[in-house]
Amino acid sequence: MAAKPVDFTAAAGAIVAAGRKLGALGLTPATSSNFSMRLDNGNLAVTVSGRDKGALTPHDVMVVDMQGEPIGTSAKPSAETLLHTQIYTRFPEANAVLHTHSRAQTVASRLYARAGVIRFEGWYTTHESQLDLPVFANTQQMPELVAKVGAWIDSGKPLYGYLIDGHGIYTWGRDMAETERHVEAFEFLINCELDLRRLKFSTLEAPL
Amino acid sequence: MAAKPVDFTAAAGAIVAAGRKLGALGLTPATSSNFSMRLDNGNLAVTVSGRDKGALTPHDVMVVDMQGEPIGTSAKPSAETLLHTQIYTRFPEANAVLHTHSRAQTVASRLYARAGVIRFEGWYTTHESQLDLPVFANTQQMPELVAKVGAWIDSGKPLYGYLIDGHGIYTWGRDMAETERHVEAFEFLINCELDLRRLKFSTLEAPL
Amino acid sequence: MAAKPVDFTAAAGAIVAAGRKLGALGLTPATSSNFSMRLDNGNLAVTVSGRDKGALTPHDVMVVDMQGEPIGTSAKPSAETLLHTQIYTRFPEANAVLHTHSRAQTVASRLYARAGVIRFEGWYTTHESQLDLPVFANTQQMPELVAKVGAWIDSGKPLYGYLIDGHGIYTWGRDMAETERHVEAFEFLINCELDLRRLKFSTLEAPL
Amino acid sequence: MAAKPVDFTAAAGAIVAAGRKLGALGLTPATSSNFSMRLDNGNLAVTVSGRDKGALTPHDVMVVDMQGEPIGTSAKPSAETLLHTQIYTRFPEANAVLHTHSRAQTVASRLYARAGVIRFEGWYTTHESQLDLPVFANTQQMPELVAKVGAWIDSGKPLYGYLIDGHGIYTWGRDMAETERHVEAFEFLINCELDLRRLKFSTLEAPL
Repeated sequence: MAAKPVDFTAAAGAIVAAGRKLGALGLTPATSSNFSMRLDNGNLAVTVSGRDKGALTPHDVMVVDMQGEPIGTSAKPSAETLLHTQIYTRFPEANAVLHTHSRAQTVASRLYARAGVIRFEGWYTTHESQLDLPVFANTQQMPELVAKVGAWIDSGKPLYGYLIDGHGIYTWGRDMAETERHVEAFEFLINCELDLRRLKFSTLEAPL
Repeated sequence: MAAKPVDFTAAAGAIVAAGRKLGALGLTPATSSNFSMRLDNGNLAVTVSGRDKGALTPHDVMVVDMQGEPIGTSAKPSAETLLHTQIYTRFPEANAVLHTHSRAQTVASRLYARAGVIRFEGWYTTHESQLDLPVFANTQQMPELVAKVGAWIDSGKPLYGYLIDGHGIYTWGRDMAETERHVEAFEFLINCELDLRRLKFSTLEAPL
Repeated sequence: MAAKPVDFTAAAGAIVAAGRKLGALGLTPATSSNFSMRLDNGNLAVTVSGRDKGALTPHDVMVVDMQGEPIGTSAKPSAETLLHTQIYTRFPEANAVLHTHSRAQTVASRLYARAGVIRFEGWYTTHESQLDLPVFANTQQMPELVAKVGAWIDSGKPLYGYLIDGHGIYTWGRDMAETERHVEAFEFLINCELDLRRLKFSTLEAPL
Repeated sequence: MAAKPVDFTAAAGAIVAAGRKLGALGLTPATSSNFSMRLDNGNLAVTVSGRDKGALTPHDVMVVDMQGEPIGTSAKPSAETLLHTQIYTRFPEANAVLHTHSRAQTVASRLYARAGVIRFEGWYTTHESQLDLPVFANTQQMPELVAKVGAWIDSGKPLYGYLIDGHGIYTWGRDMAETERHVEAFEFLINCELDLRRLKFSTLEAPL
């Protein structure tokens, strides 16, 4: 898939395929998660609220404009659509957004909520020698969440994704394939970090 | 599947399909677990005792009445059929019941048996900000177990499912699809809670 | 499959199928594990030494007699064939034996080697309210191992399977299906026991 | 596959197949990992840099000479090609090399980096009663890494594979099938060792 906006048919197809893949990996339990792609007409294709993301059809994907308003449908978009539109507005190179809710993402968001960030250091999975993944408090008020994310971007600190406390990850990329790789890389790093935390403890206290 | 009672053929088909799905996820080890659906004639379709739930055929599903007595068959229903009939009697909107026996469900039931409940708080997987999952002692005497569950319902506290100590979960829904989502959501939440317990400990004792 | 000895073609087929299933579950890493069935002529079908048990063909199954001597072949049977013949000799109702080498089985064998037994109690996966799984030291000398197993049987204590330190489990049944269920049930119980051990610790030290 | 160098078509086919298998097992997250085979003309077939190793095609495999220089292509080989050529140069019997980056490999490399080695002892998965897997610091400078590996080989200590801190494992074999078994055996042993470490701690501090 080219790193530019696509038409609705292509976007819906890519979203359905991503959902099947991520669902099979256990990253989208129950009706959690939401996905979107930037369309070539400036609008957004986004998943309809409340569907099983591992078993989507193109009918579970709808169009909203960059203000999050439904276009040509009475369906209800994901409650978190404004987090998607913010990403497309602030990152012009982003053409796909994935929000997943895996066990590791959800547990890590709880553990690092107070610190407000997970700092990945010493892993050579990505090209970054140090990578910060912020964890935002879950106010369940979209405008507040949007403001928190916006403040991080305004600060000039790099941002490749973020966690919401108790709720999972948001990440994005130039196309769906790159975005899926970002989900995969973050899922891997978070799991490694949690493992190290569990195991370092025994190192400190009871060296074998 | 509509959120109303179905005929035996539809019920047996849904039970076989649910078993294949849940078995593949490792939620029904050996011959554990039992499943049922409410029938449109007021009876119940329930799995025959002792079968491998991941490889059911319609012949492994039988009919019992609301007192748990076999109808038109000499097969032996699950030993826990009275827990199923209780759910259908007390929750008129319930049309499907799933009892599974996953590793996380079974281990959590042991750990929280003394407390008598797992309180889920701070997870945004479901719409509930706080969710109590009771854990009932395993007397292996059905009438005692039925009385314990009944007392909880009589108390007016919400009930979406329950654990039996050393034995796994019971949950229900308006149709099989919703019930499968409830199993999936509880399985996810229990795993998250156990992970947090393992990891919070290291936080408290050895902050990294 | 009937609960009685079968011919070589049926035995080889059941062994190949069991290997594919257990291999896919990760219970037979590298060239570990060995499987056998009792034949209707009083001999034994057993896996040839050193093969990948997840990708067996009937050519990887050979015949030995009840003394473990190859019949009609120059192939080398599993080094542990005498543990198989012992089981068939001491348990006349046993018609299939599976030895697997899963991570949980192997780790648990190390942890409980000194105690010499894992006692399962409070789990309602099997019909037994209490189940002892002995762990025998790994002398790598077959006659010594055979003597240890024999001494346990002679003591009159029930025996449904055993672990060898650092090496995995042996279990058996009346046919291959029952034996696969025994592997599955032990694998489940061992995993539950290890989870409880990890989690009980945090309970004792840092109740949440 | 015979234990001798093969032609490019056979090598590319074996590399693509190994990638699909290892990717499905979660050993090659994102674009990590790299694979190679010795060719019958004295050169090397190696994966092109940056590709998803779980979804390779023969076009993602290129030829380099034993100095790591591309032959007949403008593609860029894996940044770590010199670690591959070193293995083929120092171990004449090696015809395939796999570098993977699993969660267990990566986490273990962090935990044992200071010790510089993981000593496997008491496991009967392999034929070795004791097995040392060195962990080399990740300088990200290939010549330094090559020198470290070379010094270990020069010391005369046996070497069947090695970890690079934060980065995963390198292992090799006489053909691709044997090399895949080595990856599988190391992955298994590393997971067992980490489990034991987690569980031994609770044994020492809180015997149950």
